[in-house]
Amino acid sequence: MRAERAQLAMMLEVCAFPKPGNVDRCHDYDTTWLEHFLASTILARPALDRAERGDGEIGSIILDAVERTNVHSGGNTHFGAFILLVPLVMGGDIPSTDRLIRKTTVEDSVLFYEAFGKTKVRVISGDELDVNDPRAVDEIRQRRMTLFDVMLYSAKNDMVAREWINGFQMTRRGADLLKSHGCGPDSIVKTFLDLLATEPDTLIIKKHGKDAAWKVMQKAQDVRDGFRDLVTFDQECIDAGFNPGSIADIMIASIYIALGEGWVWDC
Amino acid sequence: MRAERAQLAMMLEVCAFPKPGNVDRCHDYDTTWLEHFLASTILARPALDRAERGDGEIGSIILDAVERTNVHSGGNTHFGAFILLVPLVMGGDIPSTDRLIRKTTVEDSVLFYEAFGKTKVRVISGDELDVNDPRAVDEIRQRRMTLFDVMLYSAKNDMVAREWINGFQMTRRGADLLKSHGCGPDSIVKTFLDLLATEPDTLIIKKHGKDAAWKVMQKAQDVRDGFRDLVTFDQECIDAGFNPGSIADIMIASIYIALGEGWVWDC
Repeated sequence: MRAERAQLAMMLEVCAFPKPGNVDRCHDYDTTWLEHFLASTILARPALDRAERGDGEIGSIILDAVERTNVHSGGNTHFGAFILLVPLVMGGDIPSTDRLIRKTTVEDSVLFYEAFGKTKVRVISGDELDVNDPRAVDEIRQRRMTLFDVMLYSAKNDMVAREWINGFQMTRRGADLLKSHGCGPDSIVKTFLDLLATEPDTLIIKKHGKDAAWKVMQKAQDVRDGFRDLVTFDQECIDAGFNPGSIADIMIASIYIALGEGWVWDC
Repeated sequence: MRAERAQLAMMLEVCAFPKPGNVDRCHDYDTTWLEHFLASTILARPALDRAERGDGEIGSIILDAVERTNVHSGGNTHFGAFILLVPLVMGGDIPSTDRLIRKTTVEDSVLFYEAFGKTKVRVISGDELDVNDPRAVDEIRQRRMTLFDVMLYSAKNDMVAREWINGFQMTRRGADLLKSHGCGPDSIVKTFLDLLATEPDTLIIKKHGKDAAWKVMQKAQDVRDGFRDLVTFDQECIDAGFNPGSIADIMIASIYIALGEGWVWDC
């Protein structure tokens, strides 16, 4: 049930429209399409089943998920989402997940970096231990960093890693917002906009710098407050290549949690 | 691998756009959305896994698939597709599937009708043994009709049932057309149009009569031959409620076969 719920969350997130800057049912990027996200959603199932059964450690299951979903030409679709979903599916709820991730090992970190090496996720140069740099494995072993330590180290530049450190705060907030907006796919769009209006997306920061991410955040506030048109804003983001992919990853985790707490997607 | 391939076929079919009259990535029906089709695609996995493992008979696996996918409010999405996919996943290829379906039993028919009763598929009144009438179970037992016999009986009014009888001819043709149109989602649209231009859809016949189905077929020919605009035709079909759902079911089977023969969906 939990694996399925994670897949439904991945599917619902990518379909929700209009989602500023991201792939949705009406927008593809040139090399990454709606179908790539949905194929990854389908192909991840056995890894998510392992997470639900507790069959293996976090690092090995994230690696499994990446290997299974890496078979199409659409590049990375769900690496950030797996960083959140795999422990959440293993843990069941946020408090249990919180205890679980604090018990990760150096081996989890090594397998995580192996997984990372198989994606094409953006690397920040000059930061030898960033979660986004696959060359850091030797350093990891030397410093005996667990996967939790890696996330702690990466949290300053990566809002997905930050979720591990702060008890899944944004995930929790997203789930609460979803429920407050009521049932149905429109609530996903509204919640996405709420999150986008509150924090600069770290994927946009990595690709385009802090100023771009702040501008997107401010425009999202305008849209939320009714001063700017959502569809126009979406198109602006797409044209500029501003894709808030980290908030999308957290959104998936929020949908997963909300579904488990009775939020209804089809009404 | 076969279960996954069946899911990919279901996902690719529903996303392909523009698909005259059917749900696609840009069109929902009021109560049946893209997300309902994709949820069913995800939820069917354990039943398709059973088909791949040969764990159970055709009737019980079709019932399993229907029960698992019946949990959302979108109504029937894939009953016709399961009638084709379950034996195809069990059989592996068309010749093996052909042998398999000729060995079905009365028990398969009974479970099939139980599955049917849980969908809201259109019934033809006045035909006490039609595949689309759940009240026919007693009659089935009395006449000792296997599921193959039921399909034989239903073939005159139902092109999905006809596939069982004629060695999956339209499925085979669709797979060959897909490959001839080349890789990528556009080939799905072209193949769908080819099939729509060749045979009247039996779901349209059941809902709107023969004349409507013939008109749709003729307009599809015009579109294929460049005399009519595809997007306009799509909108006309949607406005009139003409949804060629049986050809969509067969299209899913064609994609499944083509994927198994090396056709590439993302290029």
